[in-house]
Amino acid sequence: MRVAVCQLGLAVGDLEGNRASGVQAIVAAAEVGADLVLLPELSDSGYVFSSLAEARSCASPSRGNPTIDGWLSLARQHTLAVIGGFCELSDDGRLYNSAACVDPAGVRLIYRKMHLWDRESEFFSSGDQLSPICELMGVKVAVAICYDLEFPELVRLLALQGVEVLAVPTNWPATVTPVDERPIELIKAQASAATNGIWIAIADRGMMERGVSWVGCSTIIAPDGYPQTAPLSAEQTGIVVADIEPSRASDKSVTPRNDLFRDRREDVYRVVVQVDTP
Amino acid sequence: MRVAVCQLGLAVGDLEGNRASGVQAIVAAAEVGADLVLLPELSDSGYVFSSLAEARSCASPSRGNPTIDGWLSLARQHTLAVIGGFCELSDDGRLYNSAACVDPAGVRLIYRKMHLWDRESEFFSSGDQLSPICELMGVKVAVAICYDLEFPELVRLLALQGVEVLAVPTNWPATVTPVDERPIELIKAQASAATNGIWIAIADRGMMERGVSWVGCSTIIAPDGYPQTAPLSAEQTGIVVADIEPSRASDKSVTPRNDLFRDRREDVYRVVVQVDTP
Repeated sequence: MRVAVCQLGLAVGDLEGNRASGVQAIVAAAEVGADLVLLPELSDSGYVFSSLAEARSCASPSRGNPTIDGWLSLARQHTLAVIGGFCELSDDGRLYNSAACVDPAGVRLIYRKMHLWDRESEFFSSGDQLSPICELMGVKVAVAICYDLEFPELVRLLALQGVEVLAVPTNWPATVTPVDERPIELIKAQASAATNGIWIAIADRGMMERGVSWVGCSTIIAPDGYPQTAPLSAEQTGIVVADIEPSRASDKSVTPRNDLFRDRREDVYRVVVQVDTP
Repeated sequence: MRVAVCQLGLAVGDLEGNRASGVQAIVAAAEVGADLVLLPELSDSGYVFSSLAEARSCASPSRGNPTIDGWLSLARQHTLAVIGGFCELSDDGRLYNSAACVDPAGVRLIYRKMHLWDRESEFFSSGDQLSPICELMGVKVAVAICYDLEFPELVRLLALQGVEVLAVPTNWPATVTPVDERPIELIKAQASAATNGIWIAIADRGMMERGVSWVGCSTIIAPDGYPQTAPLSAEQTGIVVADIEPSRASDKSVTPRNDLFRDRREDVYRVVVQVDTP
């Protein structure tokens, strides 16, 4: 399975322009033989909204959605799957920071971000279900969006349900990273991949938007926790491609006597979950 | 609070020599003003046992234990706390890969490693309780040993109970690390610190033992996930010191709207725990 992660430069509110950037990236990924193409979080709307009204003006329902329909048409034309973030208007009028997965068969998965970051809670409601798991070419794929990935509970639960590739559309706002250190967002992603023995693909933003810059670091991480490509810098936009062996994620053994899942001490963890949290 | 982590070169079976190395390190740490001194896993026995009989010959009960008594005497003499690993013989004749914490008041904590790595299960029984939390100079400290740290459940549960400093005596056997990458054991430790907003102190082994070399990387990681000292290389032995502000671990806020603990979606995680695992 060839995975392409696309680090895009987008402009908040420019739905047409942003969709065109996504289409361009998908076509370029198809040209290099990608089977699965990953776009960033909120890839149609952009991220740095100035008001709820602006966010609302960028949102569309998940059915008959121009962003998703565009991906679907390309998925059929090029026989590939696309996962990306979009700004969702729900039937009851709420907004969600959502992601969709499409393949030639149609829309395979809609997921609503569960853990909202900073001002997002002014614009979005939070989802209340883990990502569904969808089988693409025999590979079990699920989605987490940005801050979701920083909750080991979420990644563990998806992994225990058999996820082999976790696709992460993200908009990681830049934070201060000490000299010679890798951004902690990527460190957490690496740890999650290795802790659960799964592939994690990350598509972040590049360039600035309304004064906000990004971590960058779009890459594909193997089940041993090491990135398979040099993570893109924050200033870059572009497509990063890696060929992955999804089956590596079905073997959780780490020594002849150790297994990432069987070694969990559920018996003990369960007891302590009863303790009141501060 | 000044923390010293001691990366020691030890020899399996040489109890006297290993204890002397520990004493020497504690005294050196006291001389630079350490309040808390951390020694590696199984710091009295060494690690690479050739047989159960050899492991048994290195084990002592936790009461009247010459290793721990030695630490206690130094703790009183220098007014500091010592945490380190020792080879424990339990009342019922089992062996445990254990750690003790002592301060001038006495033995404050005994913990038995819960997650055993590779051949350890030939020698040791596994503990069945999380580390107690002990308050040292007003700071809440708990212990995890080596492979324990790779289970986010364990670190999360301790953090939710208020741990500010997680002390990790370890013997990380060397694994293949790609060029220009940091060993995944350290990456996981960094992620655990940042995910939970706690300090993590790591004391690993240096030098080789019976053909086994180590990851090294002894260091002290801040609640933002970044090491406060250059991690020691696998070939080095020595003491690494950092001054830590334990109170940084009591503030879990990461933005004015986000909090590492309150943002957890227990409501959702709980539902999915019911799903059968493969």
